[in-house]
Amino acid sequence: MIIAVIGNSSCSSKEAKLAENVGEFLAQQGATVVCGGLGGVMEAVCRGAKSKGGLTVGILPGQDSSTANPWVGIPVVTGMGEARNVAVVKSAQAVIAIGGNYGTLSEIAYALKSNIPVIGLNTWSLSRNGREDDSIIRVQSPAEAVDKAISLAKSRKHHKTASPRQAGGSQ
Amino acid sequence: MIIAVIGNSSCSSKEAKLAENVGEFLAQQGATVVCGGLGGVMEAVCRGAKSKGGLTVGILPGQDSSTANPWVGIPVVTGMGEARNVAVVKSAQAVIAIGGNYGTLSEIAYALKSNIPVIGLNTWSLSRNGREDDSIIRVQSPAEAVDKAISLAKSRKHHKTASPRQAGGSQ
Amino acid sequence: MIIAVIGNSSCSSKEAKLAENVGEFLAQQGATVVCGGLGGVMEAVCRGAKSKGGLTVGILPGQDSSTANPWVGIPVVTGMGEARNVAVVKSAQAVIAIGGNYGTLSEIAYALKSNIPVIGLNTWSLSRNGREDDSIIRVQSPAEAVDKAISLAKSRKHHKTASPRQAGGSQ
Amino acid sequence: MIIAVIGNSSCSSKEAKLAENVGEFLAQQGATVVCGGLGGVMEAVCRGAKSKGGLTVGILPGQDSSTANPWVGIPVVTGMGEARNVAVVKSAQAVIAIGGNYGTLSEIAYALKSNIPVIGLNTWSLSRNGREDDSIIRVQSPAEAVDKAISLAKSRKHHKTASPRQAGGSQ
Repeated sequence: MIIAVIGNSSCSSKEAKLAENVGEFLAQQGATVVCGGLGGVMEAVCRGAKSKGGLTVGILPGQDSSTANPWVGIPVVTGMGEARNVAVVKSAQAVIAIGGNYGTLSEIAYALKSNIPVIGLNTWSLSRNGREDDSIIRVQSPAEAVDKAISLAKSRKHHKTASPRQAGGSQ
Repeated sequence: MIIAVIGNSSCSSKEAKLAENVGEFLAQQGATVVCGGLGGVMEAVCRGAKSKGGLTVGILPGQDSSTANPWVGIPVVTGMGEARNVAVVKSAQAVIAIGGNYGTLSEIAYALKSNIPVIGLNTWSLSRNGREDDSIIRVQSPAEAVDKAISLAKSRKHHKTASPRQAGGSQ
Repeated sequence: MIIAVIGNSSCSSKEAKLAENVGEFLAQQGATVVCGGLGGVMEAVCRGAKSKGGLTVGILPGQDSSTANPWVGIPVVTGMGEARNVAVVKSAQAVIAIGGNYGTLSEIAYALKSNIPVIGLNTWSLSRNGREDDSIIRVQSPAEAVDKAISLAKSRKHHKTASPRQAGGSQ
Repeated sequence: MIIAVIGNSSCSSKEAKLAENVGEFLAQQGATVVCGGLGGVMEAVCRGAKSKGGLTVGILPGQDSSTANPWVGIPVVTGMGEARNVAVVKSAQAVIAIGGNYGTLSEIAYALKSNIPVIGLNTWSLSRNGREDDSIIRVQSPAEAVDKAISLAKSRKHHKTASPRQAGGSQ
């Protein structure tokens, strides 16, 4: 299972703590973390996941992997700038947004457009023509965010990788 | 001057009328219209601009130009799906949002991230942590939208094309 | 009709002369020129086209239109780096390659993959497993390049824009 | 260390065997395999790597992970079509090309432009203006391809991930 965690590249220490806890819980549940690979929330979630032995993927906007934070296990280098935001969310079965600025908002929008569930911790609220859009699922803690994300991800059809037996069968 | 007009690929007749008027006014002011090239608001703004002799650019998500609406003068074919949303707004000195769904929201987010002014007609409202974000400039009519967009675009540094004399000098 | 002209951002004066002549001939035939918007071959072809009153589109890799050469009429700003190469060729009904380095080679490859004809002036030659690939149509002069490009573009189905009458009918 | 393996989505059984062996050797050397995630060469290299316990990343052109071959461990979903080719090669410290059509050629071009070494097994040959370009390093076997790729990748500066101790230190 792959869960995207999105948020700003510079963040408050409170947000960093939330992100680190989210990363720890995701790794403990066996989920792979995908993010934008840079600092702030992205770094904190990778640090948390790594500390619990998790796998972290950073989809980078720049031209080489040296811009990845040190807790990114697999840096994907796009060279596509902010267009890479699409790939961050589309690669996930659920998205957890923590705080965030306009880059995060573009990712929330892309996720909702693709019907990928978005769980929000202190993040954007949306309304259209004076009517609230309640598509973002509000939670109050990292544990709740991870529980929601994982249960929603499970209910979506997703990529099936070969079981060890199938992979072994190819020899 | 290049102004982006963004909105849904299917829209109400009221939104189509707003978009068509925006296109007419932009063309009358000599502005080039850039949009996502598809139907709905995108088609209506191109139709309006073309009816007044304006130039229209459609930055398409798909694989060929046959998906462009018939009032796109210059179809740019990206084959990049929704990642093309970045290019729609970055190509403009100001953005006019009319109504819109999540795709439009991603474009608003990208524009605000790049400090490109966004003028809104019946579009999204944003808030963060209970605090309203008033970056989208609200207007009430197509004429007001176009006036705002053009005056804000003028105050930004933008691409300088060769004057006729410079171009002639290259011969 | 839209013809892409591709080549290096720094080029010899001989290549620049070829590109400028290609631009002049394309404009005289009423074709719109699309290119990567930067210097070298891209600048020369735009200068040539502009000098004959042609329309030029530059699909830029960077973050703003100030990187466009001064003969780009319509700068499309992608912020996507070299991923924009796809859009340069997909936007055209035929491609003319003049000289060129690896960026140009990626564009030739994308065009051939999309079955867009490629006309070559002093450009790459390809072979696979010792067998020559003759998909690039070799020509000897700018005039021949433009004639080939336009006749091949005409034989492809392409985007139909509204005739003046249709556009007028929308008023 | 991350090595990209590129080739056609439909391939001969001989090419599939080469790719599977390349995958096996890469996994045995501890390298992560990145590829385009689809069938043919991409599927064979993933199958080989998985059979030896390796990690495989598939950077997909389409809209969801269901298009990944079953031996992709981490599907990265871009929705960007062939523009994703840039990301496949930029994410690697070296590239192994096996056979291949025009898509593969675009990836070879992107890699050479970014100074990422390309090792070729029965793949494209290039020349410019009648002069051969020998940038692609020719090899005769999967073992030789993997040896070359790994030694060239080691000599490049690359992304440093946190050592277990650093990661542990964040707790």
